[in-house]
Parts: sequence; structure tokens; C-alpha cells
Amino acid sequence: MAKELPTRKEDYSLWYNELVKKADLAEHSDVRGCMVIKPYGYSIWEKMQQALDKMFKDTGHMNAYFPLFVPKSLFEAEEKNAEGFAKECAIVTHYRLKTDPQNKGKLIVDPEAELEEELVVRPTSEAIIWSTYKKWIQSYRDLPILVNQWANVVRWEMRTRLFLRTAEFLWQEGHTAHTTADEAVRETVQMLDVYADFAENFMALPVVKGRKSEGERFPGAVDTYCIEAMMQDGKALQAGTSHFLGQNFAKAFDVQFTNKEGKLGYVWGTSWGVSTRLMGALIMAHSDDDGLVLPPKLAPIHVVIVPIFRTDEELAKISDKAQEISAALRKQGFAVKFDNRDTHKPGFKFAEWELKGVPVRLAIGPRDMEAGTVEVARRDTKEKQVMKLDEVAEKIPALLDDIQATIYARAKTFRSEVTTEVNSYEEFRKVLDEKGGFLAAHWDGTPETEAAIKEETKATIRCIPLDAKEEAGVCIYSGKPSTRRVLFARAY
Amino acid sequence: MAKELPTRKEDYSLWYNELVKKADLAEHSDVRGCMVIKPYGYSIWEKMQQALDKMFKDTGHMNAYFPLFVPKSLFEAEEKNAEGFAKECAIVTHYRLKTDPQNKGKLIVDPEAELEEELVVRPTSEAIIWSTYKKWIQSYRDLPILVNQWANVVRWEMRTRLFLRTAEFLWQEGHTAHTTADEAVRETVQMLDVYADFAENFMALPVVKGRKSEGERFPGAVDTYCIEAMMQDGKALQAGTSHFLGQNFAKAFDVQFTNKEGKLGYVWGTSWGVSTRLMGALIMAHSDDDGLVLPPKLAPIHVVIVPIFRTDEELAKISDKAQEISAALRKQGFAVKFDNRDTHKPGFKFAEWELKGVPVRLAIGPRDMEAGTVEVARRDTKEKQVMKLDEVAEKIPALLDDIQATIYARAKTFRSEVTTEVNSYEEFRKVLDEKGGFLAAHWDGTPETEAAIKEETKATIRCIPLDAKEEAGVCIYSGKPSTRRVLFARAY
Ligand SMILES: [Zn+2]
Ligand SMILES: [Zn+2]
Repeated sequence: MAKELPTRKEDYSLWYNELVKKADLAEHSDVRGCMVIKPYGYSIWEKMQQALDKMFKDTGHMNAYFPLFVPKSLFEAEEKNAEGFAKECAIVTHYRLKTDPQNKGKLIVDPEAELEEELVVRPTSEAIIWSTYKKWIQSYRDLPILVNQWANVVRWEMRTRLFLRTAEFLWQEGHTAHTTADEAVRETVQMLDVYADFAENFMALPVVKGRKSEGERFPGAVDTYCIEAMMQDGKALQAGTSHFLGQNFAKAFDVQFTNKEGKLGYVWGTSWGVSTRLMGALIMAHSDDDGLVLPPKLAPIHVVIVPIFRTDEELAKISDKAQEISAALRKQGFAVKFDNRDTHKPGFKFAEWELKGVPVRLAIGPRDMEAGTVEVARRDTKEKQVMKLDEVAEKIPALLDDIQATIYARAKTFRSEVTTEVNSYEEFRKVLDEKGGFLAAHWDGTPETEAAIKEETKATIRCIPLDAKEEAGVCIYSGKPSTRRVLFARAY
Repeated sequence: MAKELPTRKEDYSLWYNELVKKADLAEHSDVRGCMVIKPYGYSIWEKMQQALDKMFKDTGHMNAYFPLFVPKSLFEAEEKNAEGFAKECAIVTHYRLKTDPQNKGKLIVDPEAELEEELVVRPTSEAIIWSTYKKWIQSYRDLPILVNQWANVVRWEMRTRLFLRTAEFLWQEGHTAHTTADEAVRETVQMLDVYADFAENFMALPVVKGRKSEGERFPGAVDTYCIEAMMQDGKALQAGTSHFLGQNFAKAFDVQFTNKEGKLGYVWGTSWGVSTRLMGALIMAHSDDDGLVLPPKLAPIHVVIVPIFRTDEELAKISDKAQEISAALRKQGFAVKFDNRDTHKPGFKFAEWELKGVPVRLAIGPRDMEAGTVEVARRDTKEKQVMKLDEVAEKIPALLDDIQATIYARAKTFRSEVTTEVNSYEEFRKVLDEKGGFLAAHWDGTPETEAAIKEETKATIRCIPLDAKEEAGVCIYSGKPSTRRVLFARAY
């Protein structure tokens, strides 16, 4: 069949790239490093957005919109942030094209339309937002500010991969301002919890909540929290970050407020974000050699109904029944597709909807109609069962719940299997190369050791888990004392 | 009071600018011509998006996402489109900043990171989308393509106004591809109808559906349809456009398909869009000297409850009742705000929620509690009435419907009053200067006459109404024969 994928075992990376394209999720565009998110892929992203947006609003945030461009002088105000992003920024220098006098029908940049100050296409919006917050904040009465933005950002990456790393990507970025450090830290952790909740309950993706080491911190943050997920090839993927910014941006942009006692002080900040990278995580965590496996809570189509027919009369009868089932399911909030195309055979349709990850497939033929039955296939386990036609609509919600739970449990079991406690550098290297996954190891806490391990093995500290228990040990690399294990892995 | 606005009569333009800022809708940013859409303003835009998005999906469209950047060589492929936007494009020429060797802590554009080909920040996405459609379309089986995108675009405008004309704005752009001209024209008209439906039924804004004259056509379109609305100062505002693109973009990007008979031909296209400009239309059409007047269907808050109290005990009793009413209204799908701040007096709160356009205000004091009543004020007419406390939740839905209808009727009456049939150029100029509004006049159909009238009076042809009746007449400017009246106006 034309749609066949390479297997994960053969070539995991190729399997991923082909799956993304063949399942109509995304493709490369004519712009270096930028992707086109295709309608089917975008409809999954929309489901993610809706769920996250509701969670943000339920925790008191409102959406707003800030400019795409950051004037260079604002961009450089918070020095560490500027340094961190300077090397991968798209820069607007001109505001007009003109016809090429040498070349009819072609355009050139008009040298007379050079900007006085260059504009950076936002790689992240702290600078433009904090320069705005300065105008919004005078007193403690103006705080907290709890704002989120859904936007596109640009980071000029040299090596790009669909969804995982692209020059332009879509994301949300929350930016909050508070009167105290405590309140800002609570916000940072609250949003980390929101992300973990979303990953586990919608994406069916178990995640480790933790803090980044100094070397992996967001440029300009005091502390970076993250959720880390495990992919099927044993590589980790950072699925979301939440930053405690301290007073760094408030100081860089002079954002002060008068407290209840009339005293002036700098505002405390946070920022937090997840992006279309989550699409990559979703795909890589659950899919198999036949295609996508979507958790029902993020599936744009929950149930596909494929009629098996030879004649128009057979199709007509099945159609009536299919409409009835669809209506009953839609009333319960599920999206149903009736694939009545007469240009393709059932086998082709089965493969296509498997490729696209639809959680449940119903097949109805003339014999089913006579017997009052329907064949129900679940995408996650490939199991099939026969249900009564007049019970199927009421049984599917529980089946979808079970699929959601099964996908999560499978990912969690896999993660346990590839999480290893290692106690020496030799063991570390052996496990990393032979098995991959998360390596829980003692580390002396220094950037030097972290850098040396990264240099020698390509593994990085994914996080210091929030629930890491106190445990005396020695650093696998330096032999110096350590009080808790951290998680290492090779990562996307 | 601090929030007081200039009146519309004093200075309509200043009234608008101040209203946008004081009602927390939007403000100027530190980036030339770019605005910040503040949370309250954005929440109205979100209501617009939700309603429109549902209408697009109900008519068979799906969302997708295409790159922000357009390589110059693609941008210039459709010559008229390129010409039309070349003079107002932001151009990315470099992809990196570096530290300024002359100036510690400052950044400069790295001259070694110049792009081989400049990138245009999309002013509209026909070019990048049709270069993608070329890959998606081989046969009639791949058609129609019915795709929409929610995105930011940049047009480097020299004179900007919040929402109405900004360098960056948010919009949706539909881009469809079809096998026949007929089908594409039907799509163009269908989406015009969707826009008119949205304007009238959600924005409470009566619009005229029509076609643009050649001079006002979208660059690259064969035909441009539009909806035109009338603002309170007698100026028109184009609220949405839908373009029949013919085969122009298909030819520019070589997008051909094989039809059922195996014959190759170019694809037919449409594009259609509305933007955050609709926010400007909404504000200017309905608001008054006390602030915003929002149609309930787009109001982020439908009902505000203001307690009148002296003691904590009084507040506690009123709060209980307010929670009860809120719960009953929320159950019916309405958004309720209970403004229990003890830092502001009721009078201040009344003015603030009037400024923000909340359709219904409930005021409850201790005497109301005793009498079992509540004072209900509607924002549109400023009328107050007393309702029984235990009936208010069930009466409010009808009240909100009435407000929606009243706002629409008022706008429609106003538009009728400022729409004038004129039969000579002298009458045209007199009415235009003294009364403004829409002028229905005969026109000879030539770009020369259109240009001369624009030059002399600043009035443009807003549209040739779809429902214009055939009527023999003579052009008010040239005296040449004409068969129908067109609508002139000065416009935003
Ligand atoms: Zn690739
Ligand atoms: Zn202004």
C-alpha cells in the first residue's frame, strides 16, 4: 500500500518524519525551517489549545496580544535573555520593496526604506511585555497581572524537524507580575502543575516534574521548572517550562510598584509556555508502525464508521443505521466520521484511519445488518469485538475512556522500564548506549560535571525531580558527595 | 471623574481614541504602528473568533497554519498582488545579532548573517499558500480545498489608528481552491453571506453587501465582494472582503489539476478575510459618550451585579443573593461579574461598567433585599426598571435579546437616515459635507470618474450593492448614461 511506513525499529527518525507527512499532520514549506501545519494536524493542535486555554482561564488568566516585533533597544535590555536569543533571531531591517530597475517584474528591497532601529521578530515576548507592564503597574492594586498570549514566535534554528524544532512555531506564553516572590513562585509551580495535568490527562503522557540545572535554565530566569516526557526510542522530550523570573525583567524595564505601606519596590515575574512541540511528543510517545495512536481526548475524530457494501441498496441501508449511531454519539459530544466514499475499498479505508489514529472504528456490512451487530476495532490495541447495533452508541463512551487509560498506562509502563538507577559512570555509559531512557544518578551539582558528561555522552540533566528523595550518594562523574539523584537522558 | 470621555460631538476621533484606551481595549506599543490588545479588548475579539470559526466550520472549512515569512521570489510571482503590497512590507534580511564590539551590553545585526534571499513578513498569504497548494493538488479528487487560517499579518502603514489601521493586525484568511469558476464564485458569495450574517446577528451591525469597483479590488483578484457598514460620524467602514481570484494565483504558481475526463487545467481560487478592524467597527457603530455599548452576543460579561452596602453584614446578605442569581444565569450560559470591591463606591462602579459596555447592570441594596427587588439598568437605552429578586434570573435572557435587537435597530435606523439618493454632483458635494453617510448616485463605470470624485471630495465608491435595482440614470460627474446607483462615502 502507498501509505506504508518504515517501522520504528528500522529507523525511528525516518518513521517519525514519514508518519508526520503521511498522516497529513505537517510538511516542510518553501521557507527554510518553517512548516505548514496541515488541516488534520492543526485540528489536533486546536484540541490542545482548547483544553489548555480553559485550564488557564480556570486559574484566573486572561488572553491578550502583544506585538510580533521587538525594537532592538528593548530586546537587549535584559542582558541574559538577549544573549540567550541573539544568535537565532530574524531581523527586520526594511519596510518596503520596489521594482528592480534592472529586472522587469522583479522586486528588490528599497535601500531608502531602512528602519532607524532594527526590529527583532519575537523569539519570546518578555521584553515587549515587560516594557508594556511598566505602563500598567503603579500600585499593588494593579497586581497580580495574569496574562497569556497565543502567538507565533521565531527562533532561527539551523537543524529543524517538523513540530520538534522549527524556525517558526506556535505557542502560548503566560506572563505574570506579582507583589511578592512567594506569590510568583506559587504561580510558577501552579502552571507547571497545569502542564503536567494536561500532559497526563489529555495527552495520556506521563511526565516528570522537576527543576532545571543552572546550565539548562531559561535565559533571564532565576529558576526554570519543566515537565519531561519519555519517547519510544528512549530519548527524553521537554514538554513544557515554567519560569520564576525573580525581579530580573522588572529591573531591566524599571517596573516598580507602591505597596500597601507606600513603599516602592520591583515587581516579581513569571513566564511559562508550551508549543506545537507537544504535537511531536504526542506523535512519538504513542504511535506505532501502522500510524498515529491518538488519545480520545485530543482526537479530532473519535469514531469512524466504514460501510462494507456491494450495491447502492446495501449502502443505503447501512447509511441509515450509521446516521442513527452518529447522531447518538454526537449528542454525547463525540466526533464521528462516516466514510461512505465509493472510490476506495474498505481495506484501504481501514489502513487510512489507522494511519490517522482514529481511536475507534466501526465496520458494518450486510450480514451485520441482518444479525443486528457491528464490528468494533480499537486503534490502541488493535482488538476487535462484536457489539449489538442498538447498544454500540451507549457503549462507546466507556470504550473511549478505556482507550485513553490504556494509552496512558502503556506509556507509563514503558517509562518505568527505561528508567534506571545507575551508580557509576561506567554503568551510566553502558545503560545509556544499550537501553537509553532516564538515568537516575547522583551528580555533584556543578556546571563543570554537567558539561563534561554532556560532552562525553550527549546526555543532559533533564531535571532535578520535585519528588526526588533525599539520599546520600556520590557523583557518578566526580565522586564528590551528592544528596539526591537527578535524571539524565539524551533528549530531543 | 477620571475616566470621562470627550463627547462624540466635540471630537469624534478623539472620543474613539480615548474610549479604546480608557475601556482597556487596546493601546499603542513601543513598536511603531503596532498595538497591544489588552485583556478586555482581546476577550471581545475571542468572542468574535469563536462565532466566526464555528460558521466557517459549519460551511465545511478547516483551519491550518502557513509560514509567517514569504521568500521574495514567491512573493513576486503574482505580479499584481506583489505590486499591491510591495510598498508596505516588513522585510527580514538577517538571522542573527551579535554583541557590539564598540558598545558593551549592546547588540548589532551580524553582517555575516545576511539571508541569501530576503523574507517578506506576510501582508496576506496567497503566495505562500498557493505555492503549497501546488503540492496538494493533482486531480479533481483533491478538490475543493477549503482552508482557513487565523494569523497575524503586517502591512507597514504610515498613519495608524488603534484597531482600524495598524502595522500588525490579527485576522483570519480563508483560501480555497476549486475545479470550476462557478463553484469558486459560489464560495466567494457564500463567505460574503457568512460575514454579513455575523455582522448583523452578532455585531448588531447592518451591512450592505456589494462588489468593489475595479479601482478598489484586491490586488490579484478578478472580483472583490465586500460588506460595508456605517459609523456614527457618517463615515463608512469596510468590514470584510471576499475575493474571487479566478485562475490568477493558479497560473502564477502553476497549480493545475486533472479533471474527470483526464484533461489538465488551472485551479480556480478564492480568498476572504476579516480582521481586528471589526473591533473598531463594533466600537464606533454603537458606543456613546459614556463608553462602550456591546451587543450581548459579543459581550465578555453580560451582567454585572453591584452591591450597595455600608456594613459587612449588609454585604454578606447581598452576596448570598448575588451568588444565587449568578449561578442561575451562568447555568443559562451567561457571564456574570459580581463587583464586590470595597475600594470603590457604587457610583464609580456604575460608570466603570458603563464605560466597558456591560449590557445589564443589577444594583442591590439593603432596601431591595427587604422588598425582594433589584434595580435593573440596561446599557443601551440607560432605562432602569425594578424586578423581583426571584424573577430576575429568568427575565434576563429576554432582556439581553431585546438589547441585541435594539442596538441593531438603532444602527439600522441611523444608517437609513444618513443614506441619501443624490442626482447631481452639486447635491453630492453638499450632502457629503453637511450630512455625510452613504450617497447612492449614478456613476458611469469608469476608473477616471471614480478617481476624479475621490480626488475632489475624498469620497470613494464603497460598493456596487448586490441588490441595486436596474435604473436608468446619468453619472453625476460625467453625465454619461448609467444603469444602477452605487454607494459613495468617505470611509475609514
Ligand atoms: Zn524533514
Ligand atoms: Zn493613537
